[in-house]
Amino acid sequence: MIINDPNAIEARSMEIIEGELAAMGIDIPEERKPVVKRVIHATADFDYAANLFFSEGAVERALEALRNGCSIVTDTQMAKSGINKAAAAKLGCEIQCFMSDPDVAAEAKERGCTRALVSMEKASRLPGPLIFAVGNAPTALLAIRDLIDAGKLRPELVIGAPVGFVNILEAKDAILALGDDVPHIVAKGRKGGSNVAAAIVNALMYKITR
Amino acid sequence: MIINDPNAIEARSMEIIEGELAAMGIDIPEERKPVVKRVIHATADFDYAANLFFSEGAVERALEALRNGCSIVTDTQMAKSGINKAAAAKLGCEIQCFMSDPDVAAEAKERGCTRALVSMEKASRLPGPLIFAVGNAPTALLAIRDLIDAGKLRPELVIGAPVGFVNILEAKDAILALGDDVPHIVAKGRKGGSNVAAAIVNALMYKITR
Repeated sequence: MIINDPNAIEARSMEIIEGELAAMGIDIPEERKPVVKRVIHATADFDYAANLFFSEGAVERALEALRNGCSIVTDTQMAKSGINKAAAAKLGCEIQCFMSDPDVAAEAKERGCTRALVSMEKASRLPGPLIFAVGNAPTALLAIRDLIDAGKLRPELVIGAPVGFVNILEAKDAILALGDDVPHIVAKGRKGGSNVAAAIVNALMYKITR
Repeated sequence: MIINDPNAIEARSMEIIEGELAAMGIDIPEERKPVVKRVIHATADFDYAANLFFSEGAVERALEALRNGCSIVTDTQMAKSGINKAAAAKLGCEIQCFMSDPDVAAEAKERGCTRALVSMEKASRLPGPLIFAVGNAPTALLAIRDLIDAGKLRPELVIGAPVGFVNILEAKDAILALGDDVPHIVAKGRKGGSNVAAAIVNALMYKITR
């Protein structure tokens, strides 16, 4: 039977996910559950129930930043597209992606580095609280780590969910090694993606807006 | 060790994927391999080696359409964002997504149906050859099937890769049941997504442009 109401479809989907997690004996702390469930909803991949790592207090800090109208910085236009614009607007949050900016491309070419690195440096100069949602470029995570180490960046949350086979584990480890001082949600292992990064942002926003 | 050259990263990633597929004893026909590998590259999920179903001759028909500068229609802005603009431009292909069009929203509201359905109807009125890349909305696939059955649409390729838990299998079955007459590539089961739909389009385009 085809259900046509989008809200009913989503509610039923979340019920199914919740039921299957329970059947697998997977117990997720209440505060993190909406994030894990929305990532599974976006991928139909229950591996994320085990893969998603939350630093202590990350969800709380992220919600505070979202309530304060932080900027949300992505490393792909795709992740930016996947973040709910209405929810972000309601919170007064701007979604920023500098990857296609001509000045970023020019500087990356001149320095012989990735546009992701230059994008993150550009983002670090934004005023106000920042959430980073990285779903693609390991060099974006490495740049964030370098900026933090240099005392040039203090993000409210780093979502580390690039997908792939090369540089990925090293980049995620660089964020995981920050410990609880720098709030982070990391998709451990190879999996992730712009859809995963966007789903994490949406789940956090919906905790406030819905 | 961190590899910095994007081309080297992609080449190495594809080597790893190829190696792991071989180690799993999975043999994919040469013509379909770039599509399967690119979806695994986008998701780090080897399930797609088994999940991706190709109707007979689908790749060949799709390449012909791409060479003829077809329109590529998506059901999300996210899938549109994920399709390589430079490759599409090189082929003279336009990427279209009508989901955010005000006329689509108004008509969907009036008819009490999804914007995805109205978007696909709007797309069916585009001139020239059409490739549909559906990564989100099962109702988009059902609309495409209805349009085909009504003799109003004859797509060169339907990519059926919505992800989720409700209506998804029914919608994918509606495309699979078309048989080889209507070329299709379907991600069987629950998995899929805008990233998967975009990766399939990119893999097909790169067969010509690279």
